[in-house]
Amino acid sequence: MTIAPDQRAMEVGLFRAVLRRQAASVAIITVNAGQPVGFTATSFASVSADPPLVSFNLDRGSSSWPAVATADHVAVHLLGHGQEELARRFAASGTDRFAGTPWHLGPHGVPLLDGVPAWLVARVVRQIPAGDHAIVLAEPLAGEHVDEPHAPLVYHMGRYHSIG
Amino acid sequence: MTIAPDQRAMEVGLFRAVLRRQAASVAIITVNAGQPVGFTATSFASVSADPPLVSFNLDRGSSSWPAVATADHVAVHLLGHGQEELARRFAASGTDRFAGTPWHLGPHGVPLLDGVPAWLVARVVRQIPAGDHAIVLAEPLAGEHVDEPHAPLVYHMGRYHSIG
Repeated sequence: MTIAPDQRAMEVGLFRAVLRRQAASVAIITVNAGQPVGFTATSFASVSADPPLVSFNLDRGSSSWPAVATADHVAVHLLGHGQEELARRFAASGTDRFAGTPWHLGPHGVPLLDGVPAWLVARVVRQIPAGDHAIVLAEPLAGEHVDEPHAPLVYHMGRYHSIG
Repeated sequence: MTIAPDQRAMEVGLFRAVLRRQAASVAIITVNAGQPVGFTATSFASVSADPPLVSFNLDRGSSSWPAVATADHVAVHLLGHGQEELARRFAASGTDRFAGTPWHLGPHGVPLLDGVPAWLVARVVRQIPAGDHAIVLAEPLAGEHVDEPHAPLVYHMGRYHSIG
């Protein structure tokens, strides 16, 4: 399964096969675009501690991109055990993802989903085009987390899992 | 645990507490700087599919940064169940991380650790300073993965776990 070590980019099938073997935490990102917009992401990461910065990646061809591209603030929700259905809802196409999902307006007017183990509201500071996606850098301004232990929702080999 | 929703950056203790609740896959990144250099990272992510691009974040104050800042190529190793000791070794300070670690020179002369579930060798295409860290963007050129199912190593709440 090794590609010849020249300077050609890796074949896409092998790239995907390797990346499927990475475990990724599952988050839902939301913005207020007049109406609530949100999507499931497996790329949320902490970037910097001082100043605090986080990032996520989004396909610039996705239905959520126009709303994120013009958003001043985003909310990031970390999902936990038992929230696979929520993750699938915010990854599905052609549906109203917020219908039947309990949410309210949070700091800076961003839609906050109820019942998640942790969330952040962050100010978008930069969008960096990178291939067919963009890396969105944001500075956390507000947040909350549950105090009790929780089992985070993780995506691996095309399936949802939880830890612990 | 909510910070007042003004434009001030989130207090660092709360930021860390929220991020501890995120699960992150554990990878080791290596470069060839005349001698092998490597470190444990929990920020490895897929960025773009076409062209294939991956990223990881590194503290610009870390001991590995000078080697990564000047590297043309990097290797990314995804760790699996039972490799906590390897993850700890490449996160420890003041030790020779490669001593006692089986490795060999891989494509483009980068050090490849033996016995990992998946690895990629990638060409560094961009370094993006972001706060006290940098986001390193790289284009995968070669890679390999095990065919059998494996349990990825994940970091959560300051501890290593594996899934499945």
